Amino acid sequence: MTKFKVIFQPSGRRGDIPGGTTVLEAARELGVEIESVCGGERNCGKCRVRLEKGLHLPPFIEEEKNFINDEERAEGYRLACAAQIRGDVLIFVPEESRVQQQAVRKSLMEKPIELKPALSLYYTELSPPTLQDPLGDFDRLKKALAERYNLCSLDIDYQALLRLPDVFRKGNWKVTVAVWMGEEIIDVKPDKVEDTYGLAIDIGTTTVAAYLCNLRNGKIIGTESVMNPQVIYGEDVMSRITYVMTHPEDGLEKMHQSIVDGLNRLIQKITERCNLSSEDILELTAVGNTAMHHLLLKINPEYLGVSPFPPAIHRSMDIKARDLGLKVHPSAYLHILPIEAGFVGADNVGVLIAEEPYQQDEMVLIIDIGTNGELVMGNRKKLISASCATGPAFEGAHIKFGMRAAPGAIERIKIDPQTFEVKFKVIGEEAWNEEIKNPGAMGICGSGIIDGMAELYRAGIIDKSGRFKRDLQSPRLKITDGKPEFVIAWKEETAIGKEITITQQDVRNVQLGKGALYTGAKLMMRRLGIEKLDKVILAGAFGTYIDPEAAMVLGMFPDCDLRNVYAVGNAAGDGARISLLNRDKRLEADEIARKVEYIELTVEADFQKEFIEAMQIPHMNDPFPHLKGIVKDEILNQ
Amino acid sequence: MTKFKVIFQPSGRRGDIPGGTTVLEAARELGVEIESVCGGERNCGKCRVRLEKGLHLPPFIEEEKNFINDEERAEGYRLACAAQIRGDVLIFVPEESRVQQQAVRKSLMEKPIELKPALSLYYTELSPPTLQDPLGDFDRLKKALAERYNLCSLDIDYQALLRLPDVFRKGNWKVTVAVWMGEEIIDVKPDKVEDTYGLAIDIGTTTVAAYLCNLRNGKIIGTESVMNPQVIYGEDVMSRITYVMTHPEDGLEKMHQSIVDGLNRLIQKITERCNLSSEDILELTAVGNTAMHHLLLKINPEYLGVSPFPPAIHRSMDIKARDLGLKVHPSAYLHILPIEAGFVGADNVGVLIAEEPYQQDEMVLIIDIGTNGELVMGNRKKLISASCATGPAFEGAHIKFGMRAAPGAIERIKIDPQTFEVKFKVIGEEAWNEEIKNPGAMGICGSGIIDGMAELYRAGIIDKSGRFKRDLQSPRLKITDGKPEFVIAWKEETAIGKEITITQQDVRNVQLGKGALYTGAKLMMRRLGIEKLDKVILAGAFGTYIDPEAAMVLGMFPDCDLRNVYAVGNAAGDGARISLLNRDKRLEADEIARKVEYIELTVEADFQKEFIEAMQIPHMNDPFPHLKGIVKDEILNQ
Repeated sequence: MTKFKVIFQPSGRRGDIPGGTTVLEAARELGVEIESVCGGERNCGKCRVRLEKGLHLPPFIEEEKNFINDEERAEGYRLACAAQIRGDVLIFVPEESRVQQQAVRKSLMEKPIELKPALSLYYTELSPPTLQDPLGDFDRLKKALAERYNLCSLDIDYQALLRLPDVFRKGNWKVTVAVWMGEEIIDVKPDKVEDTYGLAIDIGTTTVAAYLCNLRNGKIIGTESVMNPQVIYGEDVMSRITYVMTHPEDGLEKMHQSIVDGLNRLIQKITERCNLSSEDILELTAVGNTAMHHLLLKINPEYLGVSPFPPAIHRSMDIKARDLGLKVHPSAYLHILPIEAGFVGADNVGVLIAEEPYQQDEMVLIIDIGTNGELVMGNRKKLISASCATGPAFEGAHIKFGMRAAPGAIERIKIDPQTFEVKFKVIGEEAWNEEIKNPGAMGICGSGIIDGMAELYRAGIIDKSGRFKRDLQSPRLKITDGKPEFVIAWKEETAIGKEITITQQDVRNVQLGKGALYTGAKLMMRRLGIEKLDKVILAGAFGTYIDPEAAMVLGMFPDCDLRNVYAVGNAAGDGARISLLNRDKRLEADEIARKVEYIELTVEADFQKEFIEAMQIPHMNDPFPHLKGIVKDEILNQ
Repeated sequence: MTKFKVIFQPSGRRGDIPGGTTVLEAARELGVEIESVCGGERNCGKCRVRLEKGLHLPPFIEEEKNFINDEERAEGYRLACAAQIRGDVLIFVPEESRVQQQAVRKSLMEKPIELKPALSLYYTELSPPTLQDPLGDFDRLKKALAERYNLCSLDIDYQALLRLPDVFRKGNWKVTVAVWMGEEIIDVKPDKVEDTYGLAIDIGTTTVAAYLCNLRNGKIIGTESVMNPQVIYGEDVMSRITYVMTHPEDGLEKMHQSIVDGLNRLIQKITERCNLSSEDILELTAVGNTAMHHLLLKINPEYLGVSPFPPAIHRSMDIKARDLGLKVHPSAYLHILPIEAGFVGADNVGVLIAEEPYQQDEMVLIIDIGTNGELVMGNRKKLISASCATGPAFEGAHIKFGMRAAPGAIERIKIDPQTFEVKFKVIGEEAWNEEIKNPGAMGICGSGIIDGMAELYRAGIIDKSGRFKRDLQSPRLKITDGKPEFVIAWKEETAIGKEITITQQDVRNVQLGKGALYTGAKLMMRRLGIEKLDKVILAGAFGTYIDPEAAMVLGMFPDCDLRNVYAVGNAAGDGARISLLNRDKRLEADEIARKVEYIELTVEADFQKEFIEAMQIPHMNDPFPHLKGIVKDEILNQ
C-alpha cells in the first residue's frame, strides 16, 4: 500500500500514512487530538482542518458543504473525518479544532526593557484650509508638527499619504500621526490615538514564534507560535538550500512565499485573538539564522552553503513590509536584525542583545538550541561565535515519539537503576505518572528525551557509546524489527493507544546533536585559549525545560559549575522584542554583530576526531569536576 | 439604430457609430487609416487593433484565430475588419497597423541642460571572499565603494540587494553599481557599464508624452506620445473628479489603473523601439496638473474639486515606481514634481523650471495650453499663477473634424475676403493645397482651427460674437440641420471621403477656450497692477504650431508686441526632462512652487462679466496697438 508523508501543524507530529486513510484517522495514529463530537460521522463539523495548498488536496464531498463555505474550501479547509490522504500533505489543525490548545511556552525574558520604540505618536489639531490659506494637506500637517513638536524635515510614506485627505476630513482636522525614527510619517488616524502595536518575530528553522506588543507600554499582548511551513521542503537549513539549488525555476520563490504565507497566517491569528486588525501592526522586527533570513527576503541562499559561506548582507535592514507581501499596515517597516557570519544570523544577534555577554567579565557560553545550534563564547574582551547542525531531535522531530513541548508531552523521566521502573511527568499535569489515574502521555518533548537518555545511561540500559544493552532483564526492553527500544509509558498510560518508547535511533539522533554542540564549544574554548567556562546559558524554547544536570550527564556542553548553568528561554525572540521596543538596541546589535568573530567549525583542525569523541556519553576527556556528589561518582565509576 | 461612442487612439479621433459597424468601417468613417491589404476580407491580418478591456469587447470569430493568439486575444486584440461595434469602445491602433505613423511633434527645448542626474554609475573590482575574509556581499561592496569613491553611508534598495549575490559571481567580482542621489544603490550589473537610462513623462489630461534619455550624455533617444486612457472616464479634470466621486467603490482605482496601464504600454513601446528593456529605465520623472498627479498616485481628488481646492501634497516626491505598479527597473524611483495650488500642478512647475521667468526682468505671461489651461505671469520680483478650463478644443477634440497635429491634419488656413476661396496646408506636405493633386486632408488640428477662425472673422464670415453670416454668397456656406458650417476642404481634397468643415459649434467651443484664457490673463494683470505684457510664451504641443498673429486676432491673450510672442513647445515635458537630467533643478522646482502665488480665478470679482466679454472676437476693450498694419486696420475698421 502506498504511504504518504503527513505533517500536522502546529504540533509538528509527522509520520507515513497509508493512502485512503482519513485525516482524522491519521491524526489519531500520530497522536494529534482533533475535536470530533460525532466520532467521524461527518455531521458535527467540529473537525475542520486546513490542508496546505499546492500539495495534494483531497476532493471535496457533499457533506462537507454544510460546514465549509466556498471561500474556506478554496483556502484548503476540509473535514478531517471526510478528507482522505491521497498524497504528501501538510495539515494545519486550527485552534478551534484542537482538543487541547497548544501551550505557547517559549518563555520571556524578565529583565525590564527600556522603552524607546522607533515609532512615536503625535496628536495635532489643524486649521482647515481656506481660500486665503489653501495649503495642501501634507504640507499643512508638516507645518503643524514642526510648530508643535519641533519635528522638522519630516517625510511621508507614499501609502500613508493616500490616506491623508479622507482622514483629515473624517477627524475634523484633529489627527494623530505615527512617525518612524523621527523622520517618516507612516500612519495618520482621525482624532486622538494612544496605542500603537508592533510584532517581534523569531523565524526558527522548525518553529516561528511571534510576540505582539503594545508600543506605548512595552507589554506583550499576544504570543503565538507555528511550525515554519518551509519544513515540507527540508527539515534543516542545508536541505532547504539544496532545494533552492535543485529547483532553479521556482525553488526560491516557493520557499519565500511559504514563509511569507505562514507569517501572514500568524499575523492574522495573533491580531484576531487580541481584537485588533492586521493593519494595526505598524512595525515588525525579525530574527532568524542566515538561511531563514535569506529565504524570508528571497535572496538566493546558494552561496551560503559553500565555503567561505558569505551572506548577501550583514547589517540590519529596514524594509517596507509590503515589499515582502506581509499583510500588516501598508506603510509598516520590517526591521531585520544583522547577521554575524555563516549560519550565525540575526537570531544569534538577538540572543546577544538580550543576554549582553559583551557587558560581562565572566567567560560565558550561550547555546541557542534549535534545528541549527548556535554558540557564542566570550566576555567583554572578546566574543566568538559558531554554528553546528544539531538536527531537529531537540525540537522533538526525528524522534519516534517526539513532539514539541505541549500539553501531553513527557518532559521529565526517572528510571530506577535496580528495577528499571520508570517515572515520568507530563506537561499540563502537576503530579508524576504514578499518582495519576490516566497520565495521557502523547509523546516526548526535547527535555524529556534528554532526561530519558541521561537516565537510560545512569541505569546502564545504554552504554557510553549509546548502544542498548540487549540482554537487559526487563519487560520494558523490546526488540522491534531487530532494533531495541525502551518503553517509557505503557499503552494504558498514553492517550495515543500505544506504548511510548525511546528507540536506538532516537538515542543516535540525540547523540549527533549533543556531539555537535559539545565539539563546537570545545573548539571555541581552544580558540579562546581557556580551560573552563564561568557560565553556560541555554537559550531556545528547548533550553527552557531542559534539566541542566541531565544535559551535563549527557555531555551536551563542557564542564561548568551547575549553579551557573541556566535557561533563558527564547532569547532570540527576546532580542527581536527588545529591538522592537528600543531603537538604540538596534544600533547596538549592528555594532556587536560586526565585532563577534565567527569560527567555521567544520574547517577547524581535529573537527572530525573531536566530533566522534563527543558522541560518547559522557565525554570522557572531561571529568566534570563540578558535578555534585552522586552524579559525578556514578559517571566516574562506569 | 443605436449608436455607440467610439474613440480611436492614438489619433484621438472619435464619433458616434451605429451598432454592428465593423471597427474598420468605423475607422474609415472617422478618418483613421488602418492598414488593410485584403480590403476587409479577413485574410491579411494587417488590421489588428486592441480594444480597451473593461469596455464592450466584440466576440472573437474563427478567422481571427489565424492572426491573433490566445494571449493577444485576452489583451483585447481583434481584427478591425471582423470586430463589430457593440457598445462604447476605446480602440488602440497599434503602430504596425497604422497606414501612416503618427508624428510625435511635441518639440523640444533647445537650451542646453547642465548634466547632473540623480543617478551615477560606479565601477569597482572586488576581492572574492575567503575563509579569512568572509565579509558579506553588500558589506564588501560598500567597503570597496568607500575606499575607491569615498561614497560613505550607502544604503541599498531591497530589490537591488536580491540581485547582488548572482551578479557578483556572474561578473567575476567586477561590477558597476547605480547610485541614486549619492545615497542608495538601486542597481548592480556585472562588468563595466557606461550607459544608464531615464524617462521623463508629461501626463496631460488628453495626451501623455514621454522622453527616453541616456543619462550619461543627456541625449533623447526616443520620444513617444499616446492619448491619456482616462479620457473614457471624462474629457476634462472636473469630469474625472466627478467620476471618482460618483463611483466610490472603484472609480479611483479604475482611474489610477488606467493611467498606470497606459504608462506601462508607453514604456514598453518606447524601450522596444530603442532596443532596450523596460528594466533599463532606472529613473522616471513626471509632471501633470494636480488632478493628473493625484490620479496617478491614487490619491482621492475629491477635495481638489471644491473650494478652497487644497491638494493632498505640494512638494515633490520620490516614490518607488514599483509601488505604483510601473514596470521599469524594480528599484527605480519616480520623481514627481511639486504642485503649486489648485489645478496648477507639477506640469506648470515643469514649465517654470524650463522657462525660468523667475530669472527675468520682463513681465512675462506663459500660457500652457492643454485641456486645462495654466497661466503664469510675472518676473523675478513676483510670480502668480492660475488655471482655467479651456476644454479640449485646442487639442482637436469637440471639434467636428478636429484631430491632433498629425500627418493629414490641416494646420494653416487662408480665406480670401472677396471670393471666400480657401487655401490650406496639411501636415506632412510642404506645399499648399492648390499646388497638390490630392492634398488628402483628414481633419483640422488646433492651430488650423485658430487660423480658420481668425480667417473666418477677417473675411466677415463670422461676426465678433462668433455668429455665422447666414446670407453669405458662397457655396462653401452650408446649412445642415439648421446649423451653418463652412467648407474648408472639398470632398475630393480629403482622404476621408467627405468635406471637412468648421461648424458653428466648433466656433463656440474655441470661443469658450480662448475666452477662458483671455479672462485669466486679464484678471492676473489686474492683480499685478500692470497694463502691458513684455512677453507671451505659448507652451504645450498646441502652442508649437499656432500662428501668434491669428491667436492675437482671436483674442486668446492680451496685447503684446508680436515679436515677443513665441512658442516653446511642450515646456512641461521639458521641465520633466530637465529634472531628470539635473537634480539641482528639482530643488529649484520645490522652491519656486512654494513662491508662486496662486489666484483662484472663479472667485475673483467680475470673473463672469470679463469672461462673457472675452468670448468676443477680438476683445474690444483691447485695441491691439502692436498688431502690424493690415491686421490691425482690418480689426479696427470692422
